[in-house]
Amino acid sequence: MKKLFLLLTLLIMSTGYGQKVINLADYDIQNEKDVTPVVVKALKDAKEIGASTLLFPKGTYHFYPTFAPERYCEITNNDNGLKRTAFPLIDFHDFVVDGSGSDFIFHGKMIPFIIEESSNVKVTNLSVDWEVPFMIEGLVVANNPTEETFDIEVKTPYVVAHGHLYITLEREDSPYERKYGKRFAFWEHYNLEVGQNIFWDPKTMAPLYNTKLYNMPEKGIHAEELKKGLIRISTQMKKLPPLGSVMVSKGEYLQNRTSPAFRVFKSKDLEFKNVNVHHAGAMGLIAERSEDITLDSFNVVLREGSGRMVTTTADATHFCNVKGTVTIKNSTFENMLDDATNIHGTYVRVNKIIDDYTLAVETYHPHQNGYLFGEEGDKVQVIDQKNLQPMTEPLVLKKVERVNEKISYITFNKPIKGKVQVYDGVENISWHASAVLENNIVRNNRARSFLISTPRKVVVRNNRLSSQMASFRLTGDLGLWNESGPNEGLLIENNIIEDAVYGGNGPQSIFLIDPQYVDKDNFEGMYSRNIIIRNNTIKTFDSSIMLAMSVDGLVFENNEVIQTNTYKPIFPNTTNIRIVNCKNAVIKGNTYKKLDGSKGTLSVDNQSTAIEVSKRDDFKEVKTMKK
Amino acid sequence: MKKLFLLLTLLIMSTGYGQKVINLADYDIQNEKDVTPVVVKALKDAKEIGASTLLFPKGTYHFYPTFAPERYCEITNNDNGLKRTAFPLIDFHDFVVDGSGSDFIFHGKMIPFIIEESSNVKVTNLSVDWEVPFMIEGLVVANNPTEETFDIEVKTPYVVAHGHLYITLEREDSPYERKYGKRFAFWEHYNLEVGQNIFWDPKTMAPLYNTKLYNMPEKGIHAEELKKGLIRISTQMKKLPPLGSVMVSKGEYLQNRTSPAFRVFKSKDLEFKNVNVHHAGAMGLIAERSEDITLDSFNVVLREGSGRMVTTTADATHFCNVKGTVTIKNSTFENMLDDATNIHGTYVRVNKIIDDYTLAVETYHPHQNGYLFGEEGDKVQVIDQKNLQPMTEPLVLKKVERVNEKISYITFNKPIKGKVQVYDGVENISWHASAVLENNIVRNNRARSFLISTPRKVVVRNNRLSSQMASFRLTGDLGLWNESGPNEGLLIENNIIEDAVYGGNGPQSIFLIDPQYVDKDNFEGMYSRNIIIRNNTIKTFDSSIMLAMSVDGLVFENNEVIQTNTYKPIFPNTTNIRIVNCKNAVIKGNTYKKLDGSKGTLSVDNQSTAIEVSKRDDFKEVKTMKK
Repeated sequence: MKKLFLLLTLLIMSTGYGQKVINLADYDIQNEKDVTPVVVKALKDAKEIGASTLLFPKGTYHFYPTFAPERYCEITNNDNGLKRTAFPLIDFHDFVVDGSGSDFIFHGKMIPFIIEESSNVKVTNLSVDWEVPFMIEGLVVANNPTEETFDIEVKTPYVVAHGHLYITLEREDSPYERKYGKRFAFWEHYNLEVGQNIFWDPKTMAPLYNTKLYNMPEKGIHAEELKKGLIRISTQMKKLPPLGSVMVSKGEYLQNRTSPAFRVFKSKDLEFKNVNVHHAGAMGLIAERSEDITLDSFNVVLREGSGRMVTTTADATHFCNVKGTVTIKNSTFENMLDDATNIHGTYVRVNKIIDDYTLAVETYHPHQNGYLFGEEGDKVQVIDQKNLQPMTEPLVLKKVERVNEKISYITFNKPIKGKVQVYDGVENISWHASAVLENNIVRNNRARSFLISTPRKVVVRNNRLSSQMASFRLTGDLGLWNESGPNEGLLIENNIIEDAVYGGNGPQSIFLIDPQYVDKDNFEGMYSRNIIIRNNTIKTFDSSIMLAMSVDGLVFENNEVIQTNTYKPIFPNTTNIRIVNCKNAVIKGNTYKKLDGSKGTLSVDNQSTAIEVSKRDDFKEVKTMKK
Repeated sequence: MKKLFLLLTLLIMSTGYGQKVINLADYDIQNEKDVTPVVVKALKDAKEIGASTLLFPKGTYHFYPTFAPERYCEITNNDNGLKRTAFPLIDFHDFVVDGSGSDFIFHGKMIPFIIEESSNVKVTNLSVDWEVPFMIEGLVVANNPTEETFDIEVKTPYVVAHGHLYITLEREDSPYERKYGKRFAFWEHYNLEVGQNIFWDPKTMAPLYNTKLYNMPEKGIHAEELKKGLIRISTQMKKLPPLGSVMVSKGEYLQNRTSPAFRVFKSKDLEFKNVNVHHAGAMGLIAERSEDITLDSFNVVLREGSGRMVTTTADATHFCNVKGTVTIKNSTFENMLDDATNIHGTYVRVNKIIDDYTLAVETYHPHQNGYLFGEEGDKVQVIDQKNLQPMTEPLVLKKVERVNEKISYITFNKPIKGKVQVYDGVENISWHASAVLENNIVRNNRARSFLISTPRKVVVRNNRLSSQMASFRLTGDLGLWNESGPNEGLLIENNIIEDAVYGGNGPQSIFLIDPQYVDKDNFEGMYSRNIIIRNNTIKTFDSSIMLAMSVDGLVFENNEVIQTNTYKPIFPNTTNIRIVNCKNAVIKGNTYKKLDGSKGTLSVDNQSTAIEVSKRDDFKEVKTMKK
């Protein structure tokens, strides 16, 4: 009877244009405590009848993992594993999920949306949050330098056991615990020992100025529960956190990126519009091996009144091995524990030369286990391990055979004999993205604003950026993350950058442009090309404005730099602009208002050639010898 | 050319009976450092040509995980995950792997043999070991009661970091570490914090007498490296370990069962003959959802001269959801960190009643995530959660739909309305095994000798048993492990049991027969049926010989019990034989030579009926009231 009614409803919902809408009101969704099975059923029905839209009546919906389907997902830069999901959008085409402005509240370990092998999918008008976050936020209410302890107040669930503090998720879904008591509680649940910690400042709603001073070790932190909600932490720190600051911990490395909000894989023509991500136990959106993705008003933002300091526990957004165009516009990214976006490819590395045509290649970083580097037909090139330069013309992958999550055999259309050595990189040049990033706000997050590593055309304009580390990190490496590739046509204009690089960790720079994990003193050749930075307003309290290494064709033009007194400079003696091993650079038309009225400094090393620095600029050039 | 030669060889190897043998000598295996890819290739060839045998020339072979294929395995009572293997015996039939007496040495995390969807497979004439074990064995060379510390000497790889001691595996397969140094070393590798610890006595080569006194907590153990190979441990213990004892740690719970030696799933007619397992980072052999398995001289034994105290870090063998007959004969199981064998089913539990025919059922214990409870056509019955009694006639599974690794929907052929409640169990009665266990030796292992929980006919005879806990554990529960089902025809005869139950943990018994995690004072009905224990020789230093609860049809006859002075009794006041809530029991013809010449004690509670105790027995009966 119920089925008949449903079918009838579906028929009624069909419109004149053949557009069928599944309305979750017809599934009695408003009366369900756990809507996961309802949504899963509705998606199944949608596929069956070829519906165009899944429509939610506006409301607040709770999603539990108990009856969620699952899928083994290998997600680059996040943690792999069996993942439960409420929206298994696998093989969906020409389909819209419309939340009508609803709040989706998730519970426990799950990935709200898994979008794979799909095309022309739009997700709109909804927010994603978790009832209990994948982190602890503890207000520092006491500290004791003599004893090297401090006390935190924690309002979300936690466990103190064995002298350690554990982040835990809610436990209401445990009938066994209700029936049999706490005996099974510890290992039934998510319990992540406190690690990867950072201190936040509720006055600025951002990481503490000079965050590095308050670094805690990631392991071996002792904890004692003084009373419910009050925990004494003993650890070794350079400086104890100030009263009123907030300790944020997301738990142990390689275990704390289980649950991004959106997982996108092997899909194209996706749009995310009017979506708010208030929290996720990993990234907000991670897309890989996909094509043409638009984020329009995709906001990773604190929920008003939540009292939380932090949104996502990793990057707001991240695009790897994506082609076509990535568009991010009209979006706000705030209070993440990592970058606002990172657009890049991933080099694999040569583990073994099998024969003249075939290599065993390896992904190295554990967050790249199972990474799909390429498929038959992709164009690739070999990259020299020392200088990150292409060593071959473009080659075509004739065959890709995965051996295991680290190793694949790849076979080329042409011999690579003599052109490749063990540890060299291989870059997939078919899967690089163009990008347009405009009208976005980035603020109050740990780490960087934008990491861009793609040779396709990229425009970044009209953004307001204020992140704890570099505003722009343009790099590539064959050492740790193995992120490819170089930038070869990047325009950064009309952005306002305000008091970034306040974390104190390492010499950061507003514009930090250099290949990493290379021998910088002996690096030969250019890495990136054609980077134009113009008409930006840069308000900064610290000294380092740009480090550009190994760029061919750099324009730094008509930028207005204003020194602020927001904070005391952390690296006051750093040269403002450093040009290292560049060629064809133009620095002109820039102004620099320093607090003491002095001129800015600009250094050009003796390996650089054809560098034009305007005499009328506010930067005083000094020649430096390459070390 | 090489291929042609190989094909030629294969043709030559074909015998007159159509038996084709793949001889690894033809693959130049003796010259390979890592034979994994060679074996994987040979198995592929074997399948291609329909070979009957994979034959190794006698030798020592090293298997690395680097180029090993992998498979996501959900392995009951072990840890699930992506598993690399050297012998992916998937869909092999009428096939023999003959090692010719070779030693197979494994390196790192891998499962040597994965046997799935196969039939009539024999593995013979080989040994399995690991170069570096999944555990630390540390000789106690100093202890300091004032400081509550002790020092251990460790010869295998380990890491001390963050004040903790980590078990690690070898690292030779890390080109990155060789090239880039230790920077990536910590998280590139297997690093398991010391936990699940036990102390061994090198004089007896067994766990320390009264092991429980030396229990360490599983977390929060502080470690300091005094010099290379010498580590000071600070922890809280009732008693510090004696000098000369050996601390064995396998690391943290739920992470230390990654790598059993043999994984068997959905296979039948398997034989393991003349196989030695010297070590495994989990069980020696775990078989589930399989049929008719014979172990003949399948030995889990220390390798001579290895200097190790421990073989497998979990059970030597384990059979779950197996039908047909399990035969274990002529085998030695020594020095495991868990039982010699455990033959049982697994109850699932009712999470939700969906409709009159359908239940959502759940596996509870995290070591049963993904457990395949049943398939269409299996006979099952509902089990009452309080008294573990069948509540329905046998029902047939019409449909099984897995939702995720915890939850499945199962649909019956008949309505179950009113016959089932949430938390009740469901037992799969199609998949219980008969068993024959004869001429085996069990010794020097932590935990039990045999756990048997199956209603099919089982004979256990002519074994020599000496384990740290009970020799026979006959049980079932709906509380923790959810192991089914009752025994209903078990003969235990002509075994020699010598000085078991020396661990000191809980009141153990040579024969420990009772359902667990039930309200024992209010348990109604019988659990198991027809257990005959006769003609056994039981040499024991402690008091408890048998606890039998809720058995209908128990015979304890003609057993010879001899008290030894090997150790001081740990539980001297325990009644020797306890009969609780039994009926139709016969105790006769037994002798008991106690050291002080007194009679043994035997208690029968007032809930038991039709209990016949021979007056001529060496046990003096005392009636007890049920508490």
